Amino acid sequence: MLFPICFDDLEAEYHHLLEHVTLWDVAVERQVEITGPDAFAFTNMLTPRDLSKCAVGQGKYVVITAEDGGIINDPVLLRLGENHFWLALADSDVLLWARGVALKSGLRVNLVEPDVSPLQVQGPKAKDVVQALFGDAVTKLRYYWFLETKLDGIPVVVTRTGWTGEVGYEIYLRDGSRGDELWERIMQAGKPHNIRPTGPSDIRRVEAGILNWGADMTLQNNVYEVGLGHLVDAGKRVDYIGRVALVRIKAEGVRQTLVGIEIEGARIEMNAVPWAAAVSGTGIGKVTSAIYSPRLKKNIGYAMVPIAHSTLGTALTVTIPGSGARKATVVPRPFVDPGKAIPKS
Amino acid sequence: MLFPICFDDLEAEYHHLLEHVTLWDVAVERQVEITGPDAFAFTNMLTPRDLSKCAVGQGKYVVITAEDGGIINDPVLLRLGENHFWLALADSDVLLWARGVALKSGLRVNLVEPDVSPLQVQGPKAKDVVQALFGDAVTKLRYYWFLETKLDGIPVVVTRTGWTGEVGYEIYLRDGSRGDELWERIMQAGKPHNIRPTGPSDIRRVEAGILNWGADMTLQNNVYEVGLGHLVDAGKRVDYIGRVALVRIKAEGVRQTLVGIEIEGARIEMNAVPWAAAVSGTGIGKVTSAIYSPRLKKNIGYAMVPIAHSTLGTALTVTIPGSGARKATVVPRPFVDPGKAIPKS
Repeated sequence: MLFPICFDDLEAEYHHLLEHVTLWDVAVERQVEITGPDAFAFTNMLTPRDLSKCAVGQGKYVVITAEDGGIINDPVLLRLGENHFWLALADSDVLLWARGVALKSGLRVNLVEPDVSPLQVQGPKAKDVVQALFGDAVTKLRYYWFLETKLDGIPVVVTRTGWTGEVGYEIYLRDGSRGDELWERIMQAGKPHNIRPTGPSDIRRVEAGILNWGADMTLQNNVYEVGLGHLVDAGKRVDYIGRVALVRIKAEGVRQTLVGIEIEGARIEMNAVPWAAAVSGTGIGKVTSAIYSPRLKKNIGYAMVPIAHSTLGTALTVTIPGSGARKATVVPRPFVDPGKAIPKS
Repeated sequence: MLFPICFDDLEAEYHHLLEHVTLWDVAVERQVEITGPDAFAFTNMLTPRDLSKCAVGQGKYVVITAEDGGIINDPVLLRLGENHFWLALADSDVLLWARGVALKSGLRVNLVEPDVSPLQVQGPKAKDVVQALFGDAVTKLRYYWFLETKLDGIPVVVTRTGWTGEVGYEIYLRDGSRGDELWERIMQAGKPHNIRPTGPSDIRRVEAGILNWGADMTLQNNVYEVGLGHLVDAGKRVDYIGRVALVRIKAEGVRQTLVGIEIEGARIEMNAVPWAAAVSGTGIGKVTSAIYSPRLKKNIGYAMVPIAHSTLGTALTVTIPGSGARKATVVPRPFVDPGKAIPKS
């Protein structure tokens, strides 16, 4: 399955996202659908968040954790019914994990990849576009809530979520055969608002402090290392997968942590692989995401560094392949709108 | 992780594979390593092959099956010790599946992705190259057996396997930091034999009847549909995952099957997605792999079709996107060297 990463210069798309509204084809974000009489109990076992606090019609940003506390994925979870869930995945195979877990669990669940394909409508004029398409009910959605509806008979779920830090919605198409039709319908409704197709904006998501699974966190990391400790509900009574490990890790403290960094010097291109980060000549870390922010006029990003070298102001040396060493500094994240900081959709 | 698919024209690489020897960087074939006191019992539960018949030092081509009989992956399994296995994977996440299964299994296993990166040395002169590198012990290896050894101190496992139908070996590097060194050492030893780096040859593997997971078989297929029924050991006494489903499917018979096809008309380019295949105007199938064979001077491939339309000689109509309809015919597979037919490595 192909993923349209960009249609134009990344900075042009970024500016359009900041000023207008953008439409992203993120159909590649496949879903795991969990149904069956024990779907609630099963799904609640997959994540440290307490799903008894997630109403039907509500979504949550969650982590799916392995038994050692490692992060398998960080999907948006939608609760479509008492025993009906979707996980909108980042790039790892939660379907296989969940089917493996279910096998000897004794719980009665059905696990499939349904015919569901998300789009994102993001930017300050996104609300105008979804209002034109779906009316006031959608614009009244609270953050992470959703609505099941139809558009010219096309079945969709509309969520108040996104991967930007801007106002945004996701439209989950429930019938792949009608994708072109839905796309054209949104483009038409967006025309007065200057909508354009773009890829997801890495510049904007790094500015917002949003993490990308596979880069900023992997199966080798736990929530406490990457600043997602709030996705563990301390009061949760169920023995979810990874609980024992996470309790221990929290008590012992982590050895490394993901910090914000600024990299000095000329404008950088986004890293395709992690860059080495030397810390005071001793411990070694890595830069997981790094990109140039046009409005901050700075190179910003994240680095995973030993905890002893993670305090604000720490000096790092970042090695950019083919370009050489750069001075860098540990800074707070998110980089813009700290009050608006939101998790990855 | 990037996968070098080709270095030159695909046909030039194909001819080099047929006449000389080729070196492929297939490090992207990641391993699942299974160790721990119950590693044998656990691994034997993952596959319908009877691993009690797999000696230490021996490998097997296996399928990893889901509870419904679906094919999760078709790795080469290597048994490095009584309780030490590697699965050299096709493109799906068996690590997550296996960790999920292990969770409630009560078996004591360690499941990791080790620092192991395979290369393939394939072609009629492959034997000369591995002999120059490793001596006679390697050339005496029986098909699917392997040797743990070192090359200038670089730890490797050398297997008598491959994805071609030609003579071939795989060299599993056990220390990623020495990859460049190993590569140069093999290129040097291969110089007198006209070695060159290429990608895996889809032309040659289709000629040989070898299947590609993700194209010719997926999680939605079972072994009986794709002609891999011999990977189920009928005498196996252990209740491996998928057994109940596979026994039922075998008894009931399958509704669709993967057949060899020849497509008439001008030379085709390999399909990137499945092509539609209409069968006598009734049932509908799909072409999973299709490519032009220079030595057969024919377009060949595989189609998944309803069982009623799978007999040799059946006329199909294949729709090539952007090119139109072509006549096609069901033919035997493999397309060359039927006596030499081998499973995917």
